[in-house]
Amino acid sequence: MPSVLPLSAALLSLLTAAPKTPAPAAVTGPSPQVAERLIGAALTEGHAYARLAELTDGIGPRLSGSEGEKAAVAWAKRSFEADGVKVWLEPVKVPRWVRGTESGRVPGTERYREHRLALMALGGSVGTPAEGLTAEVIEVRSLEEVAALGEKVKGKVVLFNHSMSVAADYGKAAALRTRGASVAAKAGAVGMLVRSLATASLRSPHTGAMRYDEDGPRIPAAAVSVEDAELLHRLLAGGPVKVELKLGCQTLPDADSFNVVAEVPGREKPREVVLLGAHLDSWDVGTGAHDDGAGVVMVMEAARLIGKLKPAPRRTVRVVLFANEENGLKGGRAYAEAHAGELANHVAALEMDAGGFKPLGVALRAGPGGAELVAPWLKPLEALGAGSIVQGDAGGADISPLIPARVPFVGVKVDSSRYFDVHHSEADTLDKVDAKELAQATAAVAWVSYVLAEVPGVLPRPEAPLPAEAPKAPSAAPVGAPKPSAP
Amino acid sequence: MPSVLPLSAALLSLLTAAPKTPAPAAVTGPSPQVAERLIGAALTEGHAYARLAELTDGIGPRLSGSEGEKAAVAWAKRSFEADGVKVWLEPVKVPRWVRGTESGRVPGTERYREHRLALMALGGSVGTPAEGLTAEVIEVRSLEEVAALGEKVKGKVVLFNHSMSVAADYGKAAALRTRGASVAAKAGAVGMLVRSLATASLRSPHTGAMRYDEDGPRIPAAAVSVEDAELLHRLLAGGPVKVELKLGCQTLPDADSFNVVAEVPGREKPREVVLLGAHLDSWDVGTGAHDDGAGVVMVMEAARLIGKLKPAPRRTVRVVLFANEENGLKGGRAYAEAHAGELANHVAALEMDAGGFKPLGVALRAGPGGAELVAPWLKPLEALGAGSIVQGDAGGADISPLIPARVPFVGVKVDSSRYFDVHHSEADTLDKVDAKELAQATAAVAWVSYVLAEVPGVLPRPEAPLPAEAPKAPSAAPVGAPKPSAP
Ligand SMILES: [Zn+2]
Ligand SMILES: [Zn+2]
Repeated sequence: MPSVLPLSAALLSLLTAAPKTPAPAAVTGPSPQVAERLIGAALTEGHAYARLAELTDGIGPRLSGSEGEKAAVAWAKRSFEADGVKVWLEPVKVPRWVRGTESGRVPGTERYREHRLALMALGGSVGTPAEGLTAEVIEVRSLEEVAALGEKVKGKVVLFNHSMSVAADYGKAAALRTRGASVAAKAGAVGMLVRSLATASLRSPHTGAMRYDEDGPRIPAAAVSVEDAELLHRLLAGGPVKVELKLGCQTLPDADSFNVVAEVPGREKPREVVLLGAHLDSWDVGTGAHDDGAGVVMVMEAARLIGKLKPAPRRTVRVVLFANEENGLKGGRAYAEAHAGELANHVAALEMDAGGFKPLGVALRAGPGGAELVAPWLKPLEALGAGSIVQGDAGGADISPLIPARVPFVGVKVDSSRYFDVHHSEADTLDKVDAKELAQATAAVAWVSYVLAEVPGVLPRPEAPLPAEAPKAPSAAPVGAPKPSAP
Repeated sequence: MPSVLPLSAALLSLLTAAPKTPAPAAVTGPSPQVAERLIGAALTEGHAYARLAELTDGIGPRLSGSEGEKAAVAWAKRSFEADGVKVWLEPVKVPRWVRGTESGRVPGTERYREHRLALMALGGSVGTPAEGLTAEVIEVRSLEEVAALGEKVKGKVVLFNHSMSVAADYGKAAALRTRGASVAAKAGAVGMLVRSLATASLRSPHTGAMRYDEDGPRIPAAAVSVEDAELLHRLLAGGPVKVELKLGCQTLPDADSFNVVAEVPGREKPREVVLLGAHLDSWDVGTGAHDDGAGVVMVMEAARLIGKLKPAPRRTVRVVLFANEENGLKGGRAYAEAHAGELANHVAALEMDAGGFKPLGVALRAGPGGAELVAPWLKPLEALGAGSIVQGDAGGADISPLIPARVPFVGVKVDSSRYFDVHHSEADTLDKVDAKELAQATAAVAWVSYVLAEVPGVLPRPEAPLPAEAPKAPSAAPVGAPKPSAP
């Protein structure tokens, strides 16, 4: 794997080696001068990283409905205004779940002494009684195994002890986290634990969304650290094991929040929209630096840099900082609903939500001929290692409600291999984001966004989605479900 | 770096390739048949790892004076008895420090919102008032810098924000942890924080020993995670920063504990002792798997395997599982005192306290000619990559009180490069120990111990220690100070 490119003079000269022909009077496509300006600025000004520091060190965690979220919305609006980018707020009702105090332990027996459990309630979980919940653990690897166990699950705490070890395993393991409690409760379980969805662990639990079936029983659900899942596994090899869980979490009434929407109007086709998305909310642990502070500052920076271009690109570039991606997807749904009439004019949507890592290329979810439209314009990203169309689906949780409208999706893929070391944990903090990699990804986002807004044609729209991919009725929709590609 | 050797048939056949000549009636030196037996058993029986699981999963943390420590002493005695190795307990008075509940935060200001601090009180620290201690932070890199700051330190919490990044930096950084609070208090500080001594971090603080000057003021002292030290550094760049610390730790009256001593009497020179040491205590976080459960099971296994040899080796092999290495070194001192009359007959001492990692070779602290005595017998360790004398001092905190008696030290060096990822943290758990590496190190310890007990000559004793190396009066001795080599 190539090491991180330094922002060297050599690199900049490479980027600026494109011939500096004067721009023709009638611009017919993305221009090399704009490539210089966008990529040069993203790589040298450090603006995205400075903004990320404001968001993470200055504001910190920003779970839906929290004071941190309110502060983040105000900060984002203020920042767009400071950038001279038109901005407004669109209301979204969001769930308000609060963690409270929490702890877990394995009470001692004849075979072993007491162990503390490093755990975190899953977002959306009900709490336990104040005195805690104590029950025997039963270990499974899959949702199917719960059903197969039948009566044995009754009265137990079900431990979903999957084998996620690399980022690519996330989607499969996330189904256990999201659905495990409902499946276990239906079988008579009284509590649910899931091994943290993590690719590295120093006894560090990772939270995440879960949801209950509307009509099913609701049991407390928490993620234990990888180490604790392995401890329980070892202890269970010797006989029955009990755990005690004390979760102080609860769901309060819905709160008022906002999607922060900003745009640079197009000079020629202002009603054609290139949508750049990221989510402004985060979990209540860590400071959401990779998830999704990095995405937020990348798309903000793209708007700032594109907003300074004279003339503006052909089409409108619109940034949406979505509310409530983590535990409800209410922001993504509210946008699709409020803008239903415009979606036929959304010519592309791009969501950055896979961390602030170095860019690897561009992915597409479009109709036949999409790659041919975009690929010729990616040359300016070659020196960053991101100048090609790459395999893999483009998408994002917040833009998934745009699928029925057949909006083409474009993704700037980043190297998310270490994303799940910190994702949804106390360790998702600014120090984990490499300023160089963030700058490179920002450059790629800015350039790709400009290309989509300036290129003479538009992406062919993808085929109508298969029924399974279409969002279902709200209560059955994949709230907090694994995101389509790199989540 | 070579990857971990699998316990393959190929490896075993390599080890057993030594000629199988019948043992001569009068044994004149370490025998190849014994090499086969010791190394083969250590590599194939999995006994050390199984014992480590008993100690870590079964007993868990075992800080001096705790119930866990009592259980560990009983377990060790029982285990030696089960192995048919003579065992007894030698009383040691140990300090009893208890952590209590603890928390820290950076209260919000106009510049930033509140942050939680991931911290752990240092062992031996006084607590804060129940309502907490709130003061401005002042950041330094060294003990010297505190003095240079003069009045500016008064009323502040001093943050020792060193730059430890690799294992080799531990010794220098440990001086800040150990002495920082006393130096800061003398300058008028009201609290002390130290960046965790860690080579990896997922917001995971690492505790460790500190000590106060007898006659100086005592201020609360805690380790913050690497991430939080960096956060404080960044926030301080923008102006004053306060922290609030709530530490519930306290020191209770000394408790009764024990060194667990076991031995295999020598067949020819039973009064000549080869001492194998490790420490049975651990911190109160994690389960002390690498520190020092791994050392404990290695030396226990060496005694078990050597105890089965018929005839026994020429000299006595004595294992000491020391009490209270982590926060007092009372076990090491008690042993040196109780056995003062025998120390002239201690022909070698070896302490394993650098984690359960793959062996790299043998280090010596002996007089001239020591390497020549040992090196010829290391050939059976070649296939494990540990068949050579390596540079670096041999030693260990618990055997350091034997320095004035000029006991030769022998060390089986292990690859401790990842030791400080978990050392003194919640993450020092069984899963971090690779069973293959532990087996390899155990094989090396067993063989080297046998060699020292069987070789016709004895190691020349090292020169008299320099005055600076000799232990001083108890109150000034380096309690919890960095250990001589790989701590
Ligand atoms: Zn996200
Ligand atoms: Zn140790």
